[in-house]
Amino acid sequence: MPKISEKGLRMPASPIRKLVPFAEQAKQEGKKIYHLNIGQPDIETPDTMLQAVRHFSPKVVEYSHSAGIESYRRRLTDYYRKYDIQLDYTEIMVTTGGSEAIEIAMMSALNEGDEVIIPEPFYANYNGFSTQASVKVVPIRSSIENGFALPPIQEFEKLITPRTKAIMICNPNNPTGYLYTKPELESLKELIAKYDLWLFSDEVYREFCYDGKSYFSVMNLSGIEQNVIMLDSISKRYSACGARIGALISRNKELMATALKFAQARLSPPTFGQVAAEAAIDTPDSYFDNVKSEYVSRRDLVVSALNKMEGVFCPKPSGAFYCIARLPIDNSDRFCQWLLEKFSYEQETVMLAPATGFYSDINSGTDEVRIAYVLNLDDLKKAMRCLEEALKVYPGKKVSPKAIGAIH
Amino acid sequence: MPKISEKGLRMPASPIRKLVPFAEQAKQEGKKIYHLNIGQPDIETPDTMLQAVRHFSPKVVEYSHSAGIESYRRRLTDYYRKYDIQLDYTEIMVTTGGSEAIEIAMMSALNEGDEVIIPEPFYANYNGFSTQASVKVVPIRSSIENGFALPPIQEFEKLITPRTKAIMICNPNNPTGYLYTKPELESLKELIAKYDLWLFSDEVYREFCYDGKSYFSVMNLSGIEQNVIMLDSISKRYSACGARIGALISRNKELMATALKFAQARLSPPTFGQVAAEAAIDTPDSYFDNVKSEYVSRRDLVVSALNKMEGVFCPKPSGAFYCIARLPIDNSDRFCQWLLEKFSYEQETVMLAPATGFYSDINSGTDEVRIAYVLNLDDLKKAMRCLEEALKVYPGKKVSPKAIGAIH
Repeated sequence: MPKISEKGLRMPASPIRKLVPFAEQAKQEGKKIYHLNIGQPDIETPDTMLQAVRHFSPKVVEYSHSAGIESYRRRLTDYYRKYDIQLDYTEIMVTTGGSEAIEIAMMSALNEGDEVIIPEPFYANYNGFSTQASVKVVPIRSSIENGFALPPIQEFEKLITPRTKAIMICNPNNPTGYLYTKPELESLKELIAKYDLWLFSDEVYREFCYDGKSYFSVMNLSGIEQNVIMLDSISKRYSACGARIGALISRNKELMATALKFAQARLSPPTFGQVAAEAAIDTPDSYFDNVKSEYVSRRDLVVSALNKMEGVFCPKPSGAFYCIARLPIDNSDRFCQWLLEKFSYEQETVMLAPATGFYSDINSGTDEVRIAYVLNLDDLKKAMRCLEEALKVYPGKKVSPKAIGAIH
Repeated sequence: MPKISEKGLRMPASPIRKLVPFAEQAKQEGKKIYHLNIGQPDIETPDTMLQAVRHFSPKVVEYSHSAGIESYRRRLTDYYRKYDIQLDYTEIMVTTGGSEAIEIAMMSALNEGDEVIIPEPFYANYNGFSTQASVKVVPIRSSIENGFALPPIQEFEKLITPRTKAIMICNPNNPTGYLYTKPELESLKELIAKYDLWLFSDEVYREFCYDGKSYFSVMNLSGIEQNVIMLDSISKRYSACGARIGALISRNKELMATALKFAQARLSPPTFGQVAAEAAIDTPDSYFDNVKSEYVSRRDLVVSALNKMEGVFCPKPSGAFYCIARLPIDNSDRFCQWLLEKFSYEQETVMLAPATGFYSDINSGTDEVRIAYVLNLDDLKKAMRCLEEALKVYPGKKVSPKAIGAIH
């Protein structure tokens, strides 16, 4: 039998999906599961998008331009203008989801063995994309204590080696929900400029910023225009994950020309998805207002419920629809599996993502879980109730340091 | 300014698309262009597919399973059964077009620096995918004289080194239209078994076999089940290139499990495309009968017209919708550009793909072009007339060896 590649062996299985067999088993046993483990929102896709696909009129479903349908790319400049990002349509390449934008950006900008510094916890699939590109992730730890703020810039600088070629951020952040401030990004800019690094910024959650805080894009960091690559996707903003439409955006013409060569090899992004995405540009602000206020209510419910549980700590995030909670448990992988395999409360349980998958080192995040608050308020309430009851009876429960402090 | 990656610099630009700026210029000058340069068929997509997308009813366009929608994968087993290919649905992974199937197959099976033997001329993007995977293409020359039949197996064997890990074929072949026979494939099997290589087979044109000749799939080569990876796509069979739905198929469970890890990183193939593709399984045979008879007429027209032109030779292909013609010209890149830039006949011209793009070495294919007979008969007739007139006046015309023979 011929051998699997070394890269194939190194490639990590999705940590978010590895619990799926236990969930399927639990369902077969008649348990209801609240899925807080993946970022698949329950929010309805704007009807304008579905209508556009319904009215698709060509008789032949043709390839589009490799960089995406030109009219869509032009309309995207209108979309970005709302966020004060001024672009020419040639600075936008449409990709098959945000995933492909990251893959192509890495292949275009990084050599095998190059190092990318990424604040952790980070989106688990960054590990996968880095493995694909044979690039080394150099994590820099952010802390739950300050809500996962950007680590001090001198800590980044300590990690820079001759192989460092990029810094990658996600803003607002998946999995922490942290929204980077303009001063944080300005400080990052200095470092990028000083070492002439690439700055990859995954900004797919820009619609989800709360409490009046505002999103500042790396595209508006002046002086490093040639270093910045923005990675984007319509999956979350329009709750259209299955459309598989993203974008790779840069003002660096050489980078864009290189990215286009990779895009030409795969011919074109999906036509139906682009038709839906182009129609989505006309989504009224009221859609986002409603979605945002819904997510704020959900976040408030979840964060408040979590912090009331004994030994639990969850900083209140200002963006995206995730939070990371520290639980009084021995091991988050074990706990999340136990929730599905052994636990139920009124025939219900909850599925969470162990935070271990969001760290580059398997011994980190062992007492943390990521919660995606993508269900309605009623379900979230029940899910939090399940979690509270579960923590009372989980055999691997740990007394929290705070509680220990109280005893002494 | 940060540097582009070495891979990005090495990545070839699409040879099929590099003439596009000249075509755009020609159109601006009012010339009509017959596009025989790309495999974008004019055949209508089956209405069942468009109807399925029109009736898409979920309110949320969700991610599908990373390996594709289960019901679609199950229906695909019915489709393959029609070709006597017996599969379990778990042996099928749905991909974003055939392109992604090739990318994932290469990453899963091949190490950086591994060698893949491919009969040339071959589909130009194999060069791109190999560059992405840091894999080395080792070409083996097939000859226009015998219609681009599989080169003798002993020629393959001479190319095998310790780094050889795979042989890749396309059957029916793009760009030659050659349909490999069962005995040819059986001989290839012996070699695959002897050296325990991977056999990648791109079979996206199986619907297009002519003259009563039948397609034999590598999936039915017994004894090398663990070595075979079939790469597939619905783009050509249903004229649905923009749906971006393909498949990676293998009975090797370890390979499939590895491929799934790459698939999980990019989350899911496009949902709308899969909905259309699932509906396409019910496309009546009459659709293919009509398409096939249309292509046979087109092929006959084109091949016969070509062979009547002075100094032109074009073997008659039995599959796909391409042919390679040898023309009495100095340089096919120059000629194809000249057709757009300098030539017109009754305000019309023709766009062809220089065959240089289908060879691994830029000095090969310089007197050959690939013709995709994807236009209706009337247009093809006019296109052939253009080509004939062009060859009469092309400044780089060469007297053909045959003509030289006649003179001596």
